[in-house]
Amino acid sequence: MMFSDAGGFTLDDIPTDEVDRQEGVRRPLADAVRDLVDATIRTTVPDDEVRAVQAEIEAAVARLRVSQVPGPRGIRYNGEGRSWSWGNAVVGAHNAIAPPLVIHHDPSGVATSDVVLGAAYEGPPGLVHGGVTALLLDHLMGETASGFAKVTMTGTLTMRYRRGTPLGALHLEGRIDREEGRKVYVVASIGDADGPTVEADGVFIVPRWAADLEETR
Amino acid sequence: MMFSDAGGFTLDDIPTDEVDRQEGVRRPLADAVRDLVDATIRTTVPDDEVRAVQAEIEAAVARLRVSQVPGPRGIRYNGEGRSWSWGNAVVGAHNAIAPPLVIHHDPSGVATSDVVLGAAYEGPPGLVHGGVTALLLDHLMGETASGFAKVTMTGTLTMRYRRGTPLGALHLEGRIDREEGRKVYVVASIGDADGPTVEADGVFIVPRWAADLEETR
Repeated sequence: MMFSDAGGFTLDDIPTDEVDRQEGVRRPLADAVRDLVDATIRTTVPDDEVRAVQAEIEAAVARLRVSQVPGPRGIRYNGEGRSWSWGNAVVGAHNAIAPPLVIHHDPSGVATSDVVLGAAYEGPPGLVHGGVTALLLDHLMGETASGFAKVTMTGTLTMRYRRGTPLGALHLEGRIDREEGRKVYVVASIGDADGPTVEADGVFIVPRWAADLEETR
Repeated sequence: MMFSDAGGFTLDDIPTDEVDRQEGVRRPLADAVRDLVDATIRTTVPDDEVRAVQAEIEAAVARLRVSQVPGPRGIRYNGEGRSWSWGNAVVGAHNAIAPPLVIHHDPSGVATSDVVLGAAYEGPPGLVHGGVTALLLDHLMGETASGFAKVTMTGTLTMRYRRGTPLGALHLEGRIDREEGRKVYVVASIGDADGPTVEADGVFIVPRWAADLEETR
């Protein structure tokens, strides 16, 4: 049984054990698809081989589509406090577009993430696409603002590009700068071993319905 | 024969006809992989079937990796003025992460793009990930600033989120607001049939070496 609440999240009564088990089976498939995205970009095999592999992929798609949800995956949670957003474009375990980012929250409120970006995230030659740094920072900052407790929506987001971000190992870091009423101000950066390449600040808004909910707690 | 110039672009002496032919063979493979990314997110087939499809995908990856470029694809161009960036995260025809965006430039300097985003681009339930709108706007604005002629790098980028961006058919639009010395100011938006959902402005910088090059022309 499931229903959607005001925020569009869906309560789903699957026990946490079963959520973890399903995730464990499907994550390696998504990892294989991530590898395929990279191989598709970099391959130089002959045309006939490209066409043969294409036919294999189309057959695999048909097998997976025998049974599927009618639209996007959304965000689900159960009564035990476990939530999962398998299709999320940044952190979704089952989404081959997502690196996926794994975000750690330390008790002081700082959120960090380490990620390795390959050929699929390229913009300028050898560098991460500037929009990809914005994509990852937007997500990290949203999670920093909400701190796993509060509901927030992005208000504004400003990115300052200091230098090119090389493909490879990268580090992201975000923290709450200050809060004013329903506004949460977050600062963050992404960078390599030599320091930040892109710095960002954002204003995140606690929706009125969520703020009202908090007051009644 | 190929070599890299100051901007990291690579001159490649493949004739345009052959570039087009190779692109035509490899594009349908990338389209099949895009479809697979979506099917992987949405499938509900039994665990054994998931594992069987995973094995098929791993075999396909091995076939493609028999011959491949050692790293990312970069940006190439030939002596006929044709350039191609097959691996680009937003417009790369061979990159299954890219929708890919197709950008039109009208003579007045306005750049537009129409795109349909599905389950793989989800953030909040049923909505496009805010960072994905930033990813697409960053690219459109960069191309608007460079106007297919000038080299520019992103300086700063500010996004204002007006309301959620629904998954489905979307329209992007960008134009140069003004230019000051080596700075190009660009404004842009993404939205649905009801109007803009996210508005953006950005400052793009013409690198000194490129500005110097232009003066000597």
